[in-house]
Amino acid sequence: MTIASIAAQAGVSVATVSKVLNGRDEVASATRERVQQLLDDAAYQRRGRTAAKRVGLVDVVIPTLDTPWAFEVLRGAEKEANRLGTSLILTVTHDQHDQPREWIKTLAGRRTDGAVFVVSRVHQQVVKRLRTLSVPLVVVDQVGRSSADAPSIGCTNWAGGFSATEHLIDLGHRRIAVIGGPAEMMCSQERIAGYEAAMSRAQIPVSRNMIRHGDFYVGGGRKAAAALLGLREPPTAIFAGSDEQARGVYDEAHARGLRIPQDLSVVGFDDVEVCEWMSPRLTTVRQPLDQMAALAIRTVLQNPPSGDTPTRIELATTLVVRDSTAPPSAAADAVAAGPVRDSATDA
Amino acid sequence: MTIASIAAQAGVSVATVSKVLNGRDEVASATRERVQQLLDDAAYQRRGRTAAKRVGLVDVVIPTLDTPWAFEVLRGAEKEANRLGTSLILTVTHDQHDQPREWIKTLAGRRTDGAVFVVSRVHQQVVKRLRTLSVPLVVVDQVGRSSADAPSIGCTNWAGGFSATEHLIDLGHRRIAVIGGPAEMMCSQERIAGYEAAMSRAQIPVSRNMIRHGDFYVGGGRKAAAALLGLREPPTAIFAGSDEQARGVYDEAHARGLRIPQDLSVVGFDDVEVCEWMSPRLTTVRQPLDQMAALAIRTVLQNPPSGDTPTRIELATTLVVRDSTAPPSAAADAVAAGPVRDSATDA
Repeated sequence: MTIASIAAQAGVSVATVSKVLNGRDEVASATRERVQQLLDDAAYQRRGRTAAKRVGLVDVVIPTLDTPWAFEVLRGAEKEANRLGTSLILTVTHDQHDQPREWIKTLAGRRTDGAVFVVSRVHQQVVKRLRTLSVPLVVVDQVGRSSADAPSIGCTNWAGGFSATEHLIDLGHRRIAVIGGPAEMMCSQERIAGYEAAMSRAQIPVSRNMIRHGDFYVGGGRKAAAALLGLREPPTAIFAGSDEQARGVYDEAHARGLRIPQDLSVVGFDDVEVCEWMSPRLTTVRQPLDQMAALAIRTVLQNPPSGDTPTRIELATTLVVRDSTAPPSAAADAVAAGPVRDSATDA
Repeated sequence: MTIASIAAQAGVSVATVSKVLNGRDEVASATRERVQQLLDDAAYQRRGRTAAKRVGLVDVVIPTLDTPWAFEVLRGAEKEANRLGTSLILTVTHDQHDQPREWIKTLAGRRTDGAVFVVSRVHQQVVKRLRTLSVPLVVVDQVGRSSADAPSIGCTNWAGGFSATEHLIDLGHRRIAVIGGPAEMMCSQERIAGYEAAMSRAQIPVSRNMIRHGDFYVGGGRKAAAALLGLREPPTAIFAGSDEQARGVYDEAHARGLRIPQDLSVVGFDDVEVCEWMSPRLTTVRQPLDQMAALAIRTVLQNPPSGDTPTRIELATTLVVRDSTAPPSAAADAVAAGPVRDSATDA
């Protein structure tokens, strides 16, 4: 299939096919539909042909390896690929804007059975180009920012935020703070909304200064914890929004001589392997990153997306209770008991 | 280049070339040399040809992703590959004996610019097959078990063991224990030998029960620590042989109500990222796994081994002092002061 043959079949110029491919507007809609149909058919045929003889390689494109969750993703992807007799081609974008486009250029010179993006932002142009190359694409979208027209796999962030907060309420905490990620991130909004819903359900008023935003990394967690623990009525428990932010909370608590969980309860989000390395071991909300990645690999290899309606699948989060949460101490509780109402009024 | 053309050039049968390729003995040495020379020349030409048009892919074969050091290796390999405009093909053998041979079969059906093995045991057959395919190979051999006829990159294990022990001696410890890995592993032997040399240099007699063997993982470290801390005269400091074993020592110390470093000093080996997640942060010997992997990538891409004398390069280890080591407490020291001589006599 060449652009020229599509043009000939559709009775249009090569330039017109090119415009349709690139999603440009200046093509009459009937023409566009006819060309798109031919392109889709050609892609479908090519896909059917290539499925017969796979190369045993799947591309995984990931923004960074400098964070523990990246390895949960990679581990899950590799295990599933291995099970299906496939190796991974690993491309790390290092958060460089142009990297995915660089990567896609290399695809022209070699073959792949599919692509899994573990990238928050997927360029629509990349999605289109992959479709033209008949390379199935699934996005592991752990932050909920993907606006691309591609199937994606996430997790139930809202439910996770709810269960983390409910756990702290059940332990007897009332003065509970939350540290979200960057405010514009969907997954951060969902986790905070889950927190608010749990507080509301327990009829605990929420003071605005109990809701903070970090960057999902250690530094952001520590900064937010410093602000929270410096309050006149500090929280007795913090839902840290991510495991890395939880580590920042640990660091700040230790610096202030606060014991976890006696003086401060902490809940993370992600359940990366290092939770087991922390002292005390971190209670956290498990985001099944390995399963999300495995599902993405399985989908591109066994049930490649047809390109019609992009699906969004969310896997369930689960609370993993370890040693960083406990009932509030009598002393901390006493400090917190009264002011909850004050702060609620402040808010 | 085909086996048939080599056979024709050498004036021997195809079967003979095949025997030389497979390293079988029943070929006269003059014939073997003539055939090998032709094979090498063909490989050289092919290498020269392929160097001109690289595919931008390097194979990394690694036994597992279920350990923190694997990620240090992968991170280093990926960064260097990225710098050189190359993606990685990741194959995890999951410690399955036959996996490398499975992997090498897939190499027949696709191209690669080189291979980096992060595997302790490399089959000689795999090395030969790669040579025939003109695929340059470098082994990142962090355990010193590689007996294969291929260039390898390791680290100075002996010097690392020496500096870890010297650090503890300088802090005032005398009753210092070491936990090695499996006794048959070269890197374990070297680390323990470094420990013994430092003790000997400081004229501190070493009791045999102060030298233990684990499995380099958390479980082995904990088990050895339980035995050591259960001694009538327990050590005031433990050189744990690996960071994972150090975590096992932490777990056992915590279970016994011992504080680190007040009651027990601990030094690890590796300096994986999770050392920063431990409380207290772990003092350890940095093995530059990322640099070792980067050097391996650079070598296969830029200066592929010629196949003559396999080289062994060892990168330097460095002591990273964090918060898990301190002078022995007066109490612990008092317990330890006398018995050192007893134990030395025991040994």
